[in-house]
Amino acid sequence: MADPAPVLPTVLIVGGGFGGLKAARILAEAPVRVVLVDRQNHHLFQPLLYQVASATLSPADIAAPIRHILREQANAEVVLGEVTSVDLAARQARLAEGGTLAYDFLILAAGSRSSYFGQDAWARVAPGLKTLEDALEIRRRFLLTFERAEQEEDAELRREWLTFVIVGGGPTGVELAGTLKEMARLTLPREFRRIRTDRARVILVEAGPGILANFGSGLSEQAVQGLERIGVEVRLGQPITGIDEHAVQLGGERIPTRTVLWAAGVSAVPLGASLGVPTDRIGRVLVEPDLSLPGHPEAFVVGDLAAFTHGSGGPLPGVAPVAIQQGTCAAENLLATLANRPRRTFRYRDKGSMATLGRGKAVAHIGRLNFTGYPAWLAWLFVHLMLLVDFRSRVFVLFEWLWAYLTTQPRARLIVERKRRDG
Amino acid sequence: MADPAPVLPTVLIVGGGFGGLKAARILAEAPVRVVLVDRQNHHLFQPLLYQVASATLSPADIAAPIRHILREQANAEVVLGEVTSVDLAARQARLAEGGTLAYDFLILAAGSRSSYFGQDAWARVAPGLKTLEDALEIRRRFLLTFERAEQEEDAELRREWLTFVIVGGGPTGVELAGTLKEMARLTLPREFRRIRTDRARVILVEAGPGILANFGSGLSEQAVQGLERIGVEVRLGQPITGIDEHAVQLGGERIPTRTVLWAAGVSAVPLGASLGVPTDRIGRVLVEPDLSLPGHPEAFVVGDLAAFTHGSGGPLPGVAPVAIQQGTCAAENLLATLANRPRRTFRYRDKGSMATLGRGKAVAHIGRLNFTGYPAWLAWLFVHLMLLVDFRSRVFVLFEWLWAYLTTQPRARLIVERKRRDG
Repeated sequence: MADPAPVLPTVLIVGGGFGGLKAARILAEAPVRVVLVDRQNHHLFQPLLYQVASATLSPADIAAPIRHILREQANAEVVLGEVTSVDLAARQARLAEGGTLAYDFLILAAGSRSSYFGQDAWARVAPGLKTLEDALEIRRRFLLTFERAEQEEDAELRREWLTFVIVGGGPTGVELAGTLKEMARLTLPREFRRIRTDRARVILVEAGPGILANFGSGLSEQAVQGLERIGVEVRLGQPITGIDEHAVQLGGERIPTRTVLWAAGVSAVPLGASLGVPTDRIGRVLVEPDLSLPGHPEAFVVGDLAAFTHGSGGPLPGVAPVAIQQGTCAAENLLATLANRPRRTFRYRDKGSMATLGRGKAVAHIGRLNFTGYPAWLAWLFVHLMLLVDFRSRVFVLFEWLWAYLTTQPRARLIVERKRRDG
Repeated sequence: MADPAPVLPTVLIVGGGFGGLKAARILAEAPVRVVLVDRQNHHLFQPLLYQVASATLSPADIAAPIRHILREQANAEVVLGEVTSVDLAARQARLAEGGTLAYDFLILAAGSRSSYFGQDAWARVAPGLKTLEDALEIRRRFLLTFERAEQEEDAELRREWLTFVIVGGGPTGVELAGTLKEMARLTLPREFRRIRTDRARVILVEAGPGILANFGSGLSEQAVQGLERIGVEVRLGQPITGIDEHAVQLGGERIPTRTVLWAAGVSAVPLGASLGVPTDRIGRVLVEPDLSLPGHPEAFVVGDLAAFTHGSGGPLPGVAPVAIQQGTCAAENLLATLANRPRRTFRYRDKGSMATLGRGKAVAHIGRLNFTGYPAWLAWLFVHLMLLVDFRSRVFVLFEWLWAYLTTQPRARLIVERKRRDG
């Protein structure tokens, strides 16, 4: 008689973003059972989410079902569900839908969400950009304002409709500001009869002294110039002090606007707080050098949910490369433990940063080199195409970009009304 | 001094579907001011809407902003708004958003909506397929049921989740049934670990004696055989007598299911009733042979909203070719009046019908010829590509179809949650 099959240890991965998905793939050949749980059915390529918001790409271009990505990985199961808390002592995760998932090893990669610095009333007025739903909502609001402006008889209200304020000068805010201004300037003018869409004001507000702070001061200034050249107004050192449905307040100045988009801050998902372990100011879990939780070597935290404070430079930025490298490290440390090998300390290799500033323009620093303008844009294009999760996305996104670049007429300018669920 | 510019007559077109858009284009060079009002910002290629529901195509593949389509037509303005009533005596249309639009000529092309034979409770349980929102809702429900089934421990409930009932054996119901069954049979099996998606039941229910009733009995029977070959269960002559959240009632039989999709009936939009003119049983406006309203030669009704009962064969089917030909006729009759020429009587030229039955299979009758199988599918593919409203849609849809056909892995399998508006 054959021996009964050994019971494999269960690795529960919470979150199918860059960190969680990478960890699952590293474990593909390992003698473990991988259970990946996510509250969405899709992995999302967040660095291009602003292009869904600006109607250049469709959701299907930058998202793919997690099941599809892992379909050939025999040791992986995918669960659609939201983990609301983890009981580290009992080694169980609780689902919002009811029920629990037991584990032997845990990799928490549940990410972050938009944070409004405690100003919860702002959340309703100023949508953030973290999910496909967010992107479609921003697209809807952006396109609707031009429709409203076209119908508006009052010149002052028309200006209010045609003013867009983007809060936050990180890559998301910068890329959103550039692409929305280009849409108003290059795509829409011929479609409207009464308004001059090219005169729409796009204002990028940053509380700190410069945009793209992580890129270094040379590129930060070039980015300001690049945005100003296409007509984006950049306001530096001006924290937002109020947002309502008709205006933003910038210190003493009131800017009338109907559209405020939020790219200013994130905090870790609340799941981190459920662990009962130390977290930082924005809810990120403080991790050991091997990315495990203090006193819980079987539990790892990676990506936006982790605060890695070892080594120089303080906590790491919430970007895809950090999540991918941490997902790799956590999975490898897990395998090391299974094989009775020592674990390694996580070390982040910063390969650079890049951001687009509109059509055919970007800033990038790669290694020690800075690029700007068209070469930076080509580098950005190449890198992002290569990072897309599967071949088909690369093909289709390349076509969409070629089309949008050559015609200035991106395809996805659809207002799809959200109905109430009971509607 | 130059003469003052003459005041051009205003032609108000209500609806940017096939009929309204065609009428607008016919009037492109005419000495009129065209105002096209639609409650959506996009023209929708409805014959392919089921492919958005079945996650093969993205909304942007089959819809384009009406403004974009008419951007080069200098005499056309586009208004985003919903016309709720028309005052024929005052020559004014009232908007849901407030305000009115005055006209000299009117072309009503506002279409139809799903109708539940007075069973309004069914509408909540069984979504219809008329808009992009409908298609995305059907996609979401369809994909979610497999997720629920994968998590379900109870075998009977699992069967309930994996049963799909499609009500209505017209082209929409037939194509939806075929494509959903193919998805369950060809696309999903490798992605799930516990359920056999290929065993999902897809049941097509038709109250009448045959499906695709307009196609003639030979093709109707071939369509049944084609669907049954890929595993769709076809129930003929069985009217639905009840729908709730756990089952449909077919006479004495109760079929447990969580997913019921409605392709059984349409009625004209309520706008028709606001006119105070005779309508038929499903709310369509009875029109004169020249498509105008009795006693109102300046007002035309075309497409799904019109009941054209002159000539043989009774009222015409609610399909795109009827709408396009009527939009053309109404616009030409309007031009005839402007030029003091007599109007012509509308005459429908039926060029044929076609419907897909899954991957690489279709039935079609074109002129007097019947086609089935692969040749019919190729004809279907060619005709639908050519009918898409612009070149870019053709290119991208062709790519999506090639991809889906070759890999059986269509790209758009995304569950995007609908949030409440106040969320």
